[in-house]
Parts: sequence; C-alpha cells; structure tokens
Amino acid sequence: MPSVTVPPAIDSDRLWSSLMRMAEVGPSPNGGSRRLAMTPEDVAGRQLLLDWVESLGCTWQRDRAGNLFIHRPGRENHLPAVAMGSHLDTQPLGGRFDGVLGVLAGLEVLRTLADNAITTRRPLSLIVWTNEEGSRFAPAMGGSGVWTGRLDEEAFFSATDSQGISLREAIHACGEGGDLPLGEPELDAYFELHIEQGPVLEEQGHALGIVTGVQGIRWYDLSLRGQSAHAGPTPMTYRRDPLLAATALIQSLKEQVMADPQGAARLTVGDFQVVEPSRNVVPGEVRLQLDLRHTDDKRLAELDAAVERLAGAAAEAEGVELSLQRRWHSPVTPFDDDLIASLRRAADARGLAAPAMMSGAGHDAVHLSHVTPTVMLFVPCRDGISHNEAEYAEPEHCAIGTQLLCDTVLERAERD
Amino acid sequence: MPSVTVPPAIDSDRLWSSLMRMAEVGPSPNGGSRRLAMTPEDVAGRQLLLDWVESLGCTWQRDRAGNLFIHRPGRENHLPAVAMGSHLDTQPLGGRFDGVLGVLAGLEVLRTLADNAITTRRPLSLIVWTNEEGSRFAPAMGGSGVWTGRLDEEAFFSATDSQGISLREAIHACGEGGDLPLGEPELDAYFELHIEQGPVLEEQGHALGIVTGVQGIRWYDLSLRGQSAHAGPTPMTYRRDPLLAATALIQSLKEQVMADPQGAARLTVGDFQVVEPSRNVVPGEVRLQLDLRHTDDKRLAELDAAVERLAGAAAEAEGVELSLQRRWHSPVTPFDDDLIASLRRAADARGLAAPAMMSGAGHDAVHLSHVTPTVMLFVPCRDGISHNEAEYAEPEHCAIGTQLLCDTVLERAERD
Repeated sequence: MPSVTVPPAIDSDRLWSSLMRMAEVGPSPNGGSRRLAMTPEDVAGRQLLLDWVESLGCTWQRDRAGNLFIHRPGRENHLPAVAMGSHLDTQPLGGRFDGVLGVLAGLEVLRTLADNAITTRRPLSLIVWTNEEGSRFAPAMGGSGVWTGRLDEEAFFSATDSQGISLREAIHACGEGGDLPLGEPELDAYFELHIEQGPVLEEQGHALGIVTGVQGIRWYDLSLRGQSAHAGPTPMTYRRDPLLAATALIQSLKEQVMADPQGAARLTVGDFQVVEPSRNVVPGEVRLQLDLRHTDDKRLAELDAAVERLAGAAAEAEGVELSLQRRWHSPVTPFDDDLIASLRRAADARGLAAPAMMSGAGHDAVHLSHVTPTVMLFVPCRDGISHNEAEYAEPEHCAIGTQLLCDTVLERAERD
Repeated sequence: MPSVTVPPAIDSDRLWSSLMRMAEVGPSPNGGSRRLAMTPEDVAGRQLLLDWVESLGCTWQRDRAGNLFIHRPGRENHLPAVAMGSHLDTQPLGGRFDGVLGVLAGLEVLRTLADNAITTRRPLSLIVWTNEEGSRFAPAMGGSGVWTGRLDEEAFFSATDSQGISLREAIHACGEGGDLPLGEPELDAYFELHIEQGPVLEEQGHALGIVTGVQGIRWYDLSLRGQSAHAGPTPMTYRRDPLLAATALIQSLKEQVMADPQGAARLTVGDFQVVEPSRNVVPGEVRLQLDLRHTDDKRLAELDAAVERLAGAAAEAEGVELSLQRRWHSPVTPFDDDLIASLRRAADARGLAAPAMMSGAGHDAVHLSHVTPTVMLFVPCRDGISHNEAEYAEPEHCAIGTQLLCDTVLERAERD
C-alpha cells in the first residue's frame, strides 16, 4: 500500500476560480451572494458542486434534512470516512466565503488527490450541511443539528420562513431530500475550514488559525421597571429611573469583562430599548439583551454570577424592579486534541505560525464535535467583516487553509 | 370706594364639585378625561364653563386662536384686567386636574366675589387657552404662544392632527374662533394655579408652592457610530462599540448632575435606540436623546459644556464617531417679583408654609411672563403623577390653592 510522505500541493488558482464561480450563483447586488437555504439559488449552488465532483468519479447521497454527502472511495471502504464540510447557503446579503470556502476547499482536496492519483486508506466525505445560516429558517446550524441528534427533528422540519413555508416543504419542493438515514454515514473525523469572521488573525498578521474549540455563551433578557415621570418637575433624588440603572449595570459589567485575566471575556448588548420612549419623560421601563462569552467555563460561570450581582445592585441603587432571565447557555465546546495536534504538525511542516484560537461564532463543527472527532481551521477575513457582501478573504489565505486541510485530511485518512 | 381687608373665603365643596362635574365632560375609561383640543368634548367643556359664568353676569370674547376671555367688570374698567387662567383641553388619557384646576379655581374666585357682592377696582379676566397640551396639534402651549406673539401664527394655525386636519380648520369647525384681536385685552397681571406634576410638595408635606419661575431646558440628539461586528469572534479590544460609549456618557453625565451644588440639575434620557438591534451583534449605531434642566442658566451652560466634553471623551475612548445636535434651548424664565411677594404675604396671612419652587414643566404662564407680570401657584398631586387618568389632587389642597389665588387676585385688583 502506498503511503503519502510528501503531501501533494493544492491548486490555488483553481480554488479561487471555483470560489468566484460559485459566487455567481445567486449573485447579490453588491458583489456578494444570496443563496437562502432551500431556494432555487441554493439548489443551483449544490448542483454546480455536483457537476464538479461528478467529473472526479465521486458519488453522493442526501438525507431527509437535505444534507448532502459526497463520497470518495478509499482503499478500505468498511472504515468510517474522514469528512470535510461546511455549507453553501448564505445570508440574504451574504459574502463569497462564509461556508463556501469550507466546501470548495474540500472540493479542491478531492481534485488534488485525483490529480495525484492518490487513493486514501479510508474513504473521504465532503458534506454540505442544510440551512447553516438560519436566515430563512431558524435556528441556524439546523442540518448538522438534526443529523447529530442535537436538534429536535420536529423543530428542524417545522420551522417556517416569513412566507409560512416550512423547511420540510421547502426541502421537498427543491427535491433535496434523500434516503440516507440521519446520522449516517459513520465518520472517522470532521474537518471544517472557515473564515474567521473576526479581526484577530488579520490584526496579528497570521494566515491561519487552529481552532481548539468554541467559546461558551450565555444569553440574558433583562427588564428594569421604575416609575415613568415628567423630565421637568421630578428632581433626580425622587426618580426611579430604569435607564440609569441599565447603563450603570452595563458599565460595571464592562469593567468586569475588561478586567478578565485572560482577556477572553466578551460582552455584547445587542438590544437596548426604552418602552414608550419620549424625549422629556423619565422611562418607566427599559429592556435589554446581554450576550456574554468566554473560552473558559469557570470564568463564564463567574461572569454569570457577576451579572446577577451587578444587575441587582444597579436596580437597588436606582430603586427599580429587576427581571433577569437566562435565555441560553452553551458551554465551552472543545475540539479534538488529536486533530488539533495533527493540524499543528502540518502547520509546522509548512513553516506556518498558526495561533491556537477559540471560535466565537457557532459552526456546524460544534454539533459534529459531539459525535465525532472534530476540528476547525480559520483563515483571516478582511476587517473581520462577515455576513456582508463586502466579506473578503485573500486568495493566498484561502490556499494556505486549503493546503493545511489537505495535509491533515490525508494524514488522518492514511493512519493505521 | 370699599377696600377688601379680610378676603372672603372660597367654597371648597363647590370648587370640588365643579372639578368633578367638568371631568364628566369627555370621560376617559379609567376615571380621567379626554378633551383633545378643539374637539366636541373640548367645546362641551368650554360651554359648561360658560353656562356657569353666565349666571354670574360675566361676558366673554374669543380671539382667532380660540382663546376664551371671560370678563368680570371692575369699578374702573379702563384699567387693564387682572387675569387668572389655564386650559381645559387634556391629554388623550388625561387627568381631572391638569389645567382644569387653574380654570375652575378662577371660576370659584368669580363666584366667591359674587357671593360677597365684591366689585374689584380693576376688571378681572378668566382665560381658557387653546391647545395647551399639544397632544392633538404640536406644539404645546399654542394658544398662549400665539396670543403673546411668542409662537408664529402660521406655525400655530397650520399645525395638523394625525388625520391631517389643521388647527385652523378645527377651530372653525368648532365655532370657537372669535373677533378679539390676538394680544388683547391688555392685562395687568396673570395668575395660574396648577398641579405640580412632580413629587416635591407631597414628599415635603406642603399644601402649596409659590412658583418663582421655570427651569431652563436644553435638548440634545446624539448619534454614536462604530463598527457592527459579531458578538462572538470580536475581542473587546478590537471593538468600536457605540453602545458602550453611550452608556459611559450617560453615567458620567449623571455624576455631574448628581454633584450639582444646588441639587437642581436634571438629566433625562427619554429615548435610547440601537439601530438594527440584534442579540448577538455589536451595534453599529446608537441614537439617544438627552433632556437637561436647571433653575440657573449659568449652571445649565456649564452642563451644556459638560455634555460636549463628556460625549467627546466617551466617543474617543471607544473609538466611535459622535454626532451631537443641540435641538432646543429654553433659558430660565423668572416670574414677577411683586406677584411672588404678594403670594408670600397671602400665604403668611393664612399661616401657610409655601416653599418657593421652580416649575420643571412648561405652562401657558411661561409665554404670559414675557408680556405681563406673571406668577404661578402649585398644589401637590398624588405621587407626582400627571398626564395620566390616575392624576389626583386632594380637595383640601385644591381649596388652599384657590383661596391663595383669590386673596392675591383681590389684592392685585384693588391696589392703587
């Protein structure tokens, strides 16, 4: 049996040209893409991929959720497949790289192996997950969620879009449903290359990041209720102003987050509303949403306690009533140590300084990590901008990420 | 000529029963009143008043703005009239006292003089101003504004309600326009009794406040623009978060306001909006409105400078762009010293501890103060609540305010 000692080189130009070609499927007005899940554009994107892999001699199957599994046989096809994947659906005004890069990097790996007449020990799988974005049907990461059993089937299939069309109906209408049972085929490992969707790699001048896991997340809904009052006749000391309590809370929470010893805590207040706003009326109620993240569950738990303590103190100081609801908690998800080590070896072999980093965003890989050894690679994206038509990744960075994917997938597929 | 040495006593029960009767004109669902300016309910309220004053032998005139002037002749009718007044229009879900008390207290004064067969040296005038609330037609205090020349006639008459009906049309449709030229009759003084619409008198246990003027007000519109970003992948140190800048500004401004040596500064943030809010997205833009008030123009100017300085500092600290617009500035309006002294004498004579206070809200008296000696009296209202069906003033407090109004109007009307 041949073993691969010097990994073959991927074709950077071919990769880039495939990315640009895919972007023309469902082009958006300002140079991005619009391929909402299970629309004709999404189907056309998948078909383009299938046209490409057909010429490589691959076969494919779909499951009921429309997840698409492209198979490349190995030498020992009874062994579980080594998988690569991501998604082809986009935001309504999405970019050319989010998800697409992971899929087309996998395509480029398959093409490179074909070019070099390499047949791996284990079979390979290239997976396109359904409805990762969640823009048309909530929640996001639906296809991987239902395939891994982490998302309830009914929640997945019954989700409706703004027109009242269910995802079940949309999959059927697109002809994207198939016979492969959910959870099959068995996988040996799952690799996902993705743009970072943040600014760190670019700012630090790195071409690649090795993703060691996903941050823990806690979501909160807060309501603070005081006494609405005229701005004029009510002295400050007589007020019970929920807006002052809310801003005090945010500032004190920010202090905690900024003081994080690891510098890894993140606080986002994505919504802040005055109920019945009026320029010259002290608000009666303010509602806000908090998003707290950390790479360390212990620190996230400490921040959780801080939210409760600081919100209580802020409410008490202003004499307002607090309602604090914990809406969601997603613990830190670690990726597979062996796969991380394998990526590290491959990066070292290529002379690449690839920092270990945690993903702040959710990805299909998060669900996959609960059922199979999983890892991710990040490449930089310009200004950290994503979910936006202006999303951009350098051809060189896309190529480097794809090369590392190729190197590690080969090693994994060949191992004893 | 007779002079009044012992002022007559007003009839507290009659006053209260008139207030309760007027509240039945345009009753609102929960015990308040709904008499929007120049609606059939507003006209019916005015007609009830006219029925009452007709039996006292008074006459009346209206001007083009629908302001209603009720005349009670004096002994020397070539002298300018001593006026009392306020408004009968209400908020959509208004209370039984805001404005109404000032008008019906004036009625009670006229009735008391009639009971006691007193004819004052100067004639008296009881004025009902059009559209004080501004709920149907903006701006508020329109009738007194246009009568005093402080509001442009076109702005007054061309204001439209939500149905597109202009105030000019509404006055005409109600038959409330008259021949009296704007600015007539000449007034010797203007007295307005009103509920405080704040909590101070009640909290301090006073039945009456002598209003020495109206606070200065400054309004601001702020926009803070940073960079929208994913909550997850963007470390705090890479963010340009306008919400954190806005909350820091509010907190630092609050510190300045709370440190005011006179304790007279007031800060209200009546509106605070995230543009395109999303739970897990760092806001790209935040907009807020500030309302700053002070009883001292010099201190208000210092706070104005603080807004600019602190907003600039907060924006710089977060790396966001600031747009600061000054929307309105109303300087401190002092009331007439002689009338204030007259109220003080009357309160002393009745053994009433009546604190001097500044009005935080606008009133018709603010416009009047620019053309004639003006003063106001406040009585407490429960929990400081106003512009609300639950608005309530104690019968005893209404009576005390009306008695002081009677005492001082008599003194003013009789003076040499």
